[in-house]
Amino acid sequence: METTLNVRGMTCGHCESAVKGALEDVEGVQGVEVSLDAGTVNVIYDETTANIESMREAVEEQGYDVVV
Amino acid sequence: METTLNVRGMTCGHCESAVKGALEDVEGVQGVEVSLDAGTVNVIYDETTANIESMREAVEEQGYDVVV
Repeated sequence: METTLNVRGMTCGHCESAVKGALEDVEGVQGVEVSLDAGTVNVIYDETTANIESMREAVEEQGYDVVV
Repeated sequence: METTLNVRGMTCGHCESAVKGALEDVEGVQGVEVSLDAGTVNVIYDETTANIESMREAVEEQGYDVVV
């Protein structure tokens, strides 16, 4: 499964790493690609273990907002 | 001794931590205060061991420019 999250507040490479790392730690997430300019994060995941809500929580724990 | 560095490119708390940490690792640096909004970094240091050039290098290694 693949989804695109709209993430607010990512300003630099550190932000990109923080969001990417947090999402990669979510069980079932298989791939993460961040576009800083667009403020989007593309996530490939196994929908039997991961879900959007757990991804949203992981990103928000890093201090960024996910806009649905 | 005290100096204020003008640092370009700090956008978020991660940047602040990166610059602050790098400067604190410079021998002779005793105190570092970052103002993200102003783009300035106030450094207190022992001028017998630290110098501006070593601070500049430490900041630039983190990917930020020091404007003199």
